[in-house]
Amino acid sequence: MRHVRFRDEAGAVREGEYHDDGTVSFGGRTHALDDVEVLPPCEPSKVVCVGRNYAKHAAERNEDVPDRPLLFLKPPNAVAGHGDTVTLPREREHIEHEVEFAVVIGEQCRNVAEADAMDVVAGYTIADDVSNRDDQSREQNWVRGKAFDGACPLGPVLADPEHVDPDGASLELRVNGEVRQSSNTEHFIFDVPTLIAEITRYMTLEEGDVILTGTPEGVGPLEAGDHVEAEVEGVGTLEHDVRRD
Amino acid sequence: MRHVRFRDEAGAVREGEYHDDGTVSFGGRTHALDDVEVLPPCEPSKVVCVGRNYAKHAAERNEDVPDRPLLFLKPPNAVAGHGDTVTLPREREHIEHEVEFAVVIGEQCRNVAEADAMDVVAGYTIADDVSNRDDQSREQNWVRGKAFDGACPLGPVLADPEHVDPDGASLELRVNGEVRQSSNTEHFIFDVPTLIAEITRYMTLEEGDVILTGTPEGVGPLEAGDHVEAEVEGVGTLEHDVRRD
Repeated sequence: MRHVRFRDEAGAVREGEYHDDGTVSFGGRTHALDDVEVLPPCEPSKVVCVGRNYAKHAAERNEDVPDRPLLFLKPPNAVAGHGDTVTLPREREHIEHEVEFAVVIGEQCRNVAEADAMDVVAGYTIADDVSNRDDQSREQNWVRGKAFDGACPLGPVLADPEHVDPDGASLELRVNGEVRQSSNTEHFIFDVPTLIAEITRYMTLEEGDVILTGTPEGVGPLEAGDHVEAEVEGVGTLEHDVRRD
Repeated sequence: MRHVRFRDEAGAVREGEYHDDGTVSFGGRTHALDDVEVLPPCEPSKVVCVGRNYAKHAAERNEDVPDRPLLFLKPPNAVAGHGDTVTLPREREHIEHEVEFAVVIGEQCRNVAEADAMDVVAGYTIADDVSNRDDQSREQNWVRGKAFDGACPLGPVLADPEHVDPDGASLELRVNGEVRQSSNTEHFIFDVPTLIAEITRYMTLEEGDVILTGTPEGVGPLEAGDHVEAEVEGVGTLEHDVRRD
């Protein structure tokens, strides 16, 4: 099953079932996805992100492949939803898209062994790790670069694990219909169980927390007016727009 | 007024008034602070931290003073309370204390001008930015180093702004009674309005979010069994213990 959180005409938040024909059903009623206000599929207390988890992306950024997962954080203010318009930070020119395979945590957990890691996964969604390179290149911790409001469009669905192969899902990102990124999670340097085990050695993950697993090669600029589609096999397609402040 | 969040005998969360004699009153009853379970004074969606905001601390870490605030993040899992015992990350030897003057945000805000910054401050509290140097020195973003469970003891009180001079509050940290850090916020490189303006250029702060304003010189090691007292003029004294996993 694939789940969509949305706001109905009365403003109430509902969790419906997403169907292959692009509709959402809840309580005996069916809506077109485009007719409802789609909300992020979960409300993370934190988004734990992984950098340089595909060798070809590390190479295009002129960086080495790390010997352990490179972690960084996006707080709740960064989360945006399917159909939202991301406002780029003021007076910043060099903003890039990064499609990512996203893992949604299903229960509070700590010190999870790799062998048990899949037990704490609620399912999968899609993210665009929108990155402000002007600031990222000038700071130790990527806060201005990665944690600004709207820097984490997420959704549109939470796909149950049986829909998705985390070790072999194709992912693609298009800007205004042009393919920019195209790869497969088979190229992960660190797989999902490795990431869950490593992160939970240090911190408790809560139900609804999200792990972003890194972006493949092909990152490129975003400009005001761009329309972004980020697609992951078995999950669906996340869409968002871009504007300047 | 100074406020203490605590859990009463029935397990209910209450916000009481803190008095100079070390007692807390709520609903016509008065308790000794040591007789109640003190909770962190707020429930931040994020803690935005500032590194190297005192020149003498930058020097002792062999780092330059930054030309703009060095920002990093602690998520909610890092928050601990007065009287709690911080568990140090496994197999990590070099953990240090960092007393910090902490600003609690009182309302949701974005793009706050320096001249208006004090309007969004609910008050002040005390933090220990517990730092895992073994990992911090090996990572780009200080996640293992600064965002582990319990890495942000916070409290015990939220002091209303009239109790505290953010530009001239003395702060001190003692380990087992021995003074380790002793300074004054007059030595800030970036003051509170500057920090609020800079952070909210990029991100929305929520009611209850916290800004840690950096630590002065004198940081030093923590070991299992240590008892830490962090004192800020006009606020009070935060105490926590330390254990190994």
